[in-house]
Amino acid sequence: MTQGGRFDFEELFSDRAPEPKPGGAVQRAKYDFAVAYPDPGSLPLDELASSLRGALAEEGADLAIYPHPQGYPPLREYVADKLRRDRAIEVTPDDVILGDGSSQPLHMAIEALVEPGDVVLTEDYVYSGTLSILGRFGADVRGIRCDQDGMDPDALEEAVELAQAQGRRPKMIYTIPTFQNPQGWTMTLERRKALVRIAQKHGVPILEDDCYVDLRFEGEDVTSIHSLDDAGLVIYVGSFSKIIAPGMRLGYLAAPPQVLGVARAVKSGGGVNQFTALAVHRYAACGLREHISDINRVLRAKRDAMLAALGENMGSAATWSRPEGALYVWLRLRGDANTTLTHQAALDVDVGYHPGVNFAPDGVSGRNMARLCYGYNTPEEIGEGIARLAEVFDRAGYLD
Amino acid sequence: MTQGGRFDFEELFSDRAPEPKPGGAVQRAKYDFAVAYPDPGSLPLDELASSLRGALAEEGADLAIYPHPQGYPPLREYVADKLRRDRAIEVTPDDVILGDGSSQPLHMAIEALVEPGDVVLTEDYVYSGTLSILGRFGADVRGIRCDQDGMDPDALEEAVELAQAQGRRPKMIYTIPTFQNPQGWTMTLERRKALVRIAQKHGVPILEDDCYVDLRFEGEDVTSIHSLDDAGLVIYVGSFSKIIAPGMRLGYLAAPPQVLGVARAVKSGGGVNQFTALAVHRYAACGLREHISDINRVLRAKRDAMLAALGENMGSAATWSRPEGALYVWLRLRGDANTTLTHQAALDVDVGYHPGVNFAPDGVSGRNMARLCYGYNTPEEIGEGIARLAEVFDRAGYLD
Repeated sequence: MTQGGRFDFEELFSDRAPEPKPGGAVQRAKYDFAVAYPDPGSLPLDELASSLRGALAEEGADLAIYPHPQGYPPLREYVADKLRRDRAIEVTPDDVILGDGSSQPLHMAIEALVEPGDVVLTEDYVYSGTLSILGRFGADVRGIRCDQDGMDPDALEEAVELAQAQGRRPKMIYTIPTFQNPQGWTMTLERRKALVRIAQKHGVPILEDDCYVDLRFEGEDVTSIHSLDDAGLVIYVGSFSKIIAPGMRLGYLAAPPQVLGVARAVKSGGGVNQFTALAVHRYAACGLREHISDINRVLRAKRDAMLAALGENMGSAATWSRPEGALYVWLRLRGDANTTLTHQAALDVDVGYHPGVNFAPDGVSGRNMARLCYGYNTPEEIGEGIARLAEVFDRAGYLD
Repeated sequence: MTQGGRFDFEELFSDRAPEPKPGGAVQRAKYDFAVAYPDPGSLPLDELASSLRGALAEEGADLAIYPHPQGYPPLREYVADKLRRDRAIEVTPDDVILGDGSSQPLHMAIEALVEPGDVVLTEDYVYSGTLSILGRFGADVRGIRCDQDGMDPDALEEAVELAQAQGRRPKMIYTIPTFQNPQGWTMTLERRKALVRIAQKHGVPILEDDCYVDLRFEGEDVTSIHSLDDAGLVIYVGSFSKIIAPGMRLGYLAAPPQVLGVARAVKSGGGVNQFTALAVHRYAACGLREHISDINRVLRAKRDAMLAALGENMGSAATWSRPEGALYVWLRLRGDANTTLTHQAALDVDVGYHPGVNFAPDGVSGRNMARLCYGYNTPEEIGEGIARLAEVFDRAGYLD
């Protein structure tokens, strides 16, 4: 019953509880291409502080009350308006629940639907954070082959039919259709329509993660998957993390009433942080659109700096994506490279990145790939960091 | 596969997902004795806004970074210092994880330990929010008889032994030892020692919920259960909701490393809201102790108003607690009264309260009881609201 003289909890943990997660903050490098941070110099700090002060003067006394379980109603109204205007999504504020960043909304949708062994289909490389939530609920995650237009519809339908043949109706198709994380492409309209057709035909919900959609600095928007579906099988997630700041921890889920009912029950911690919601609501209502234009100008320059540095330092020894928006480049080295092995060597010269295998649904593919985020550092730092990274890869023989 | 022409998710939900939760905000009354709100007139709004502005000037750019998974380190340091100073609890900032209010920390501890059918022991009437989380994870919750000194140790040990005889080692004892919610008493030092002795003897962890401890306006503090345990089996939860504001959604869990590892994995939404943590940290470090003295003076006057109004309007027809702190009075009517039946009639005259049965672990006891919170309304309003409530009870024949 004791562990080194201390009480031992081991045999008391729920069989359904997740494996323990190690403590400590993530080691950060000076040239931090690891995490998809927005530009720290562009954060609208004064505007948020003023917005908060104004909101507190108007309705600060209501902080004494517990927030609405779905989150501050005026901010949900803003979200519904924004989705209608920008994504052709017709939802009401009642269809929206606010959560901590996008990760809690994703968690709510996944916990509602996925139990151990359930099949979930997603892009062949996809956001590691969602893979981690899917893993926590025991999903059998299967990656679907992608090209520059998005998920391959034939491969997707084959995977659905394979699961059905195994007696397992897939619980969801998870996709990041716009500036796919980490691959960077945007799914074409035709592919979106094909995806909806397959989902409707086989009765598989779609979880559409559109966290990056506002960060377009080139090219044309493609309408949301949600807007193409007339059956009501799309669950939609968005976030203020990339257009305001991750530290605000504000995102949202828009879902059909059945799903929303379960999501409300899954959500932990009561209605979303009201102090922050007040500030974000006042700020979003007046300054956010202009801020998005501003940060997209900054991001384009940073993307250009990274593309230039990759060209100079890795030349023809590697290939990489050329994103029209968002925060990352997907790098592909020669087939026998292993970016997991060079990860520590890169940190030793103060360069951070995420090895490709972190984004692999099967947990083993993508060894020769890496995601490089350009949001955090200045263009000059990006040049220096990529030069250092190229040296690390070169020493490992990956640029031969 | 469709439901009224819409996609039907019903058969896709996880068997482990909770039952759907109805939508909509709680109906609030003018005389709102239902929820344990702090005094809305005393919220330190200007101080929070200034604290935030100062913090953003110093380290606002770090909002671009994802918060530490356990939450803003300086605020965890403040919490560790406060626990040492006020509750004789020796923990380091690494032993603390911040969460949304106290409900997410409670959720983390409960999800870590409790699976369907697990026995959990608690006070015979106890906080409905925790009962709801325990229910969501399928706990077999058993209420232990209490008197004015706290949980009866003999009844507790009998319940532990009964569970063991049924082949089920209890997963935890959940207690609110200080200003017990809803009963209002504070567990004596002797009872706390007895509780720890029983827990250590039988190997049952204690979840100590100390959310109200700072709101003492009379009497003497009793040291924490955590400080009396030398085995490391106490998990401790606290919150800023009642001493700053519920809308801040900030609370904390202090737990042994094994539990913290699982709690980190259970936590949804990443590190706690950094925007709010920055403001609360700066405010707590300079103004919180004085603020607590101020609000306790206000609360004492409100409690006195409620006790006086109960005496005037219900006289000898009912009994009630006389709390030395916190936010509620526990009312007991004649045995055949049913406060669930009069709940709507009270709302119809703009009076809100929580029926006693909401706090019953067995879900049926406490029909003749009610919790009346005095934090929200002014003393005058409390007088009027209690008079109206007495009329409702009188019409129902409960004051005869």
